[in-house]
This record gives sequence, C-alpha cells and structure tokens, in this order.
Amino acid sequence: MNLKKEIREIPDFPKEGISFKDITTLLKNKEAFNMVVDSIVDEFKDKSITKVVGLESRGFIFGGAIASKLNAGFVPIRKKGKLPAKVLTETYELEYGEDSVEIHEDALGEQDVILIHDDLLATGGTAYAALSLAKKVGVKRTYFSFVCDLEFIDTPKKKEIRSFDPQILIKY
Amino acid sequence: MNLKKEIREIPDFPKEGISFKDITTLLKNKEAFNMVVDSIVDEFKDKSITKVVGLESRGFIFGGAIASKLNAGFVPIRKKGKLPAKVLTETYELEYGEDSVEIHEDALGEQDVILIHDDLLATGGTAYAALSLAKKVGVKRTYFSFVCDLEFIDTPKKKEIRSFDPQILIKY
Repeated sequence: MNLKKEIREIPDFPKEGISFKDITTLLKNKEAFNMVVDSIVDEFKDKSITKVVGLESRGFIFGGAIASKLNAGFVPIRKKGKLPAKVLTETYELEYGEDSVEIHEDALGEQDVILIHDDLLATGGTAYAALSLAKKVGVKRTYFSFVCDLEFIDTPKKKEIRSFDPQILIKY
Repeated sequence: MNLKKEIREIPDFPKEGISFKDITTLLKNKEAFNMVVDSIVDEFKDKSITKVVGLESRGFIFGGAIASKLNAGFVPIRKKGKLPAKVLTETYELEYGEDSVEIHEDALGEQDVILIHDDLLATGGTAYAALSLAKKVGVKRTYFSFVCDLEFIDTPKKKEIRSFDPQILIKY
C-alpha cells in the first residue's frame, strides 16, 4: 500500500500557499490506519518504551494506539491551560507570535524511556518543545516517530530532532 | 484494579465548584490504560464496528487505541475550523454561549457501524452533537462508549444518549 496516496492534500489551508496534509483520509481507512500503527510498533517494540508522549491533538490518535500495542502508558503534551494539575511549560516562537505547550510535572520520571509522537514534522517547533520538556524531567532515553516529514522545511530545531534519528513513514 | 482510584480529582478546575476528573494519571499507568482499552474492545469486538468516532481531544487517545485493536478505521469529530475539507457542522448550547463540532462530510457512509467514544459523559452535549452528525450521514448503526459518567448530571440530551445503552466504565 502506498501510504502517501491515502493522505489528502488540501490547497491553501489553513492559509494561502500551504498545501495541508490531511491524514483523516488515511485514518478512516482501516488497512492504512493499522499499517501505520503496526509500522511504528514494529520499529519500537524492542526499545523498552515505558510511555508514549503524544502531541495535541492529532498526535493523540496514533499515540494512543501505539501505547496500547506497545503495552506502555500514554502521556499527553497539550496546549497551554488544558492540563489541570501542576505543569511544566515550554514556549516557542511561531512565524507570527508564540505558542506554549505543557506537560504534567509528574507525568514522566528518570526511569522512563519515551517515544514522542506526532503526525507531522514540519518546522520541528512543537517536537523541540516536547524534547525540552522531557529534558527538564530528565528521562532515561527519548525516541521520536512522525507519520509525515515536510523535508523541504529546514530549521535548527528540526536539525536537533533529526539527530535523534526519528522514524518517518512518509516524506514530502 | 479499581479504575476510579487511578483518576485524579482536581478541585475547582476549570472553575470553582467543579471537581475535574483528570484521566492523565490513568493514561500514564500502562496497566490501567490497557485495562480500559481492553474492556471497551471486549464489549464491541463482535459488533462489526467499521469506524471508531473519537471526540476531540481526549476522545482521540482511547479512540485511536480502540480503533486499532478492533481493526476499524478512525474518524475525528473536531472543534469548529480544525478540519480542512468539506464538513458537516452541529452547534449546541453551553451554560453560557454555544459551541460547534464538525465532521468531514465524506468520513462516514450508510454502511458504517460506528462506535462514538469520549472519555467523559457529563451533560451529553458533545455526544448528542456527534449523534446528530451521524444521523445526518445516515450510518447503519451507532454505539457509544465513555470511560466516565457523571451520573449526577441529568439532561434531555443525556437521556437520549442513555437510550443507546452506552458502555460506561466508571460512574460518579
């Protein structure tokens, strides 16, 4: 199965000039959805992953499935103000303005081997913020997986994420 | 395992007088997380579910895991403006103001047997909006599952959801 064909491209969304990668067409196809889940599970099944860290909100969908099949726990990283208990916060710059993501400060520990997952690696801003949160906690080891990588985007933060040799299933 | 003990209660979040049910403590515990997933999968494994419909965004976590283990597709229902292709919209009243949820108009078909999933059944507003979207499409059959039910809240919309005999794992 050609997974890239299962992803719908939406021109000019969310703004002009951007070709949005719509994974919902892949998600609703049970064969494609499970091929993605199983490819990630196969890659990490021998890595002793203790927790899958999913990035809000599309990273929750595959993240939950992967955690379950790896018999790991699941930890959400969410937009500011969504998590109800004590949090660690990481703020990062956007093209215009800035954004913040948070993790519960008791979500991870020094013995955790984590897999940070999101559907899309674009500028690497969110993934880098997630990595910074994991470093603040001081986890044992960090892996990354992304369904798609927009390879034509290159940034210093993305270079840092690439140094972790992330699993990528679909390249643009 | 007493699943209710794995859920953290946060007093006065998101506002005074509300005791927030924080499922992140359950999610990060691999035994509790997988007990929830497997309980839902066991309940629906013989129902020929074709697609699991998850409600943004906590409903994505278990929803993705359930879809994968049921070998079904996954369909997200999202807040207004998040889905990039043509959508069906359902607007519902909140205590103050209103909210809207959307589904891609090509996400479901008349042959689909769906399981609508969210972590929490409170007023039933979001679940009812999801049901309305499924009715607009005209799916073959609709089931519901929720991790938690705030039984002390009763509304006409919730009565409608209860008529579908939803699976509930934890009651308050």
